[in-house]
Amino acid sequence: MPAAFARVVHDGREDVVAVEEPLEIRVDGEPLAVTMRTPGHDEELALGFLLSEGLIDGPRLAGLTDDLAANTIEVAGPLLRDASQRRFYTTSSCGVCGKGALEEVAVLSAALAPGPQVARALVASLPERLEQPTFEHTGGLHATGLFSADGELRITREDVGRHNAMDKVIGRALIDGLVPLAGQILCVSGRLSFELVQKAAVAGAPMLVGVGAPSSLAISVAEDRGLTLCGFARGSSVNVYTHAHRILD
Amino acid sequence: MPAAFARVVHDGREDVVAVEEPLEIRVDGEPLAVTMRTPGHDEELALGFLLSEGLIDGPRLAGLTDDLAANTIEVAGPLLRDASQRRFYTTSSCGVCGKGALEEVAVLSAALAPGPQVARALVASLPERLEQPTFEHTGGLHATGLFSADGELRITREDVGRHNAMDKVIGRALIDGLVPLAGQILCVSGRLSFELVQKAAVAGAPMLVGVGAPSSLAISVAEDRGLTLCGFARGSSVNVYTHAHRILD
Repeated sequence: MPAAFARVVHDGREDVVAVEEPLEIRVDGEPLAVTMRTPGHDEELALGFLLSEGLIDGPRLAGLTDDLAANTIEVAGPLLRDASQRRFYTTSSCGVCGKGALEEVAVLSAALAPGPQVARALVASLPERLEQPTFEHTGGLHATGLFSADGELRITREDVGRHNAMDKVIGRALIDGLVPLAGQILCVSGRLSFELVQKAAVAGAPMLVGVGAPSSLAISVAEDRGLTLCGFARGSSVNVYTHAHRILD
Repeated sequence: MPAAFARVVHDGREDVVAVEEPLEIRVDGEPLAVTMRTPGHDEELALGFLLSEGLIDGPRLAGLTDDLAANTIEVAGPLLRDASQRRFYTTSSCGVCGKGALEEVAVLSAALAPGPQVARALVASLPERLEQPTFEHTGGLHATGLFSADGELRITREDVGRHNAMDKVIGRALIDGLVPLAGQILCVSGRLSFELVQKAAVAGAPMLVGVGAPSSLAISVAEDRGLTLCGFARGSSVNVYTHAHRILD
């Protein structure tokens, strides 16, 4: 396991900071994407990223080659769709827009299962159950956790990029045969953007919980896909923005 | 000015959230990039983005056309370098790596001026001087501010994306003839990533201050470019990671 944090000296004393390094994801030797990430769990990151983008639908472990020294990871093709086609969230009616983004997520994600139903107090407490060992050292990492419906933490990952932390969790779940994430809950340490809701929906998670605020488009996508979106989860309270039928008061 | 926040209903009451919508930046009619941003100040966002990427070196106001309804902004070419060439932070010695990222920033940015010198207490207080009118409503926005060396707030912008907030400030500064940002200080409401240090360095800012933690690569780039990087600025204290000669104790 590569180090997730590095020692630095500032103001005359030693301290630690989170490591950030580029990772290039390659398919059949061709560069597909570069992300700035915290090293470690790179296979999971690559698989979670490719799944959320609708480029793979299974773990694709054969031909997965991680070269940590070169910050590259190789995935064997072919992909499910042309990855060179960039996403522009374009619809014929409105140009580039949130509606186009919604439609794209709809194409990538299957319908979510109706359950589970979870007590509001349990949902509010999930961020406290996230394990963030490196954050405690550095204060510089986002975390994502995958929880069972009764609040058991199954997978947790940290990264300088919030999308990377979620990709790593989804990639690990994909390897472990837990995708689609029916009946399970994703929880993030920060704000709830469109991109995070997309990743949760494509992975089949019926519920996404965050410590921070959701954006307008995050709410729209969650509403459209049938996902329960919860924000400002802070110990004793939580806001439920969409599909509150999964929350037991 | 488009609305930066939207009304939603959750848990039986009205609330407001930050708006997130895609923006497509086009050059001579060809799509260059899409970013998920909070609408408003799109010209500034496009100009700041293009400057940080080394694609323009002046405001390029002629031919700048914003179509808010279609979420697109047109910029007249030609650009300073081939924008279709994606960045892979590649060096011959190590594959994809932080060293390649450092070298890229070095190519894009000129040497920084030696000054200014600023009292530590003033640096620590900058986040409190950031104006965040929309954050107060939604809790969902990142902010960036441009300050003079004596702590006067010159420009402040908010966005769901931390890189967008900085691009908007840099774009505004470019229009106002304040770039390179010699003698000025950029301050952000969150963590300090590689990308934010790159943007500050390319815009010529000698000092970048953040409320949150820096990453390892953010520190390396700041060290390499001669930029004073300060983190955990919280009222009475601040950590100075690089080039502390600009800080007066």
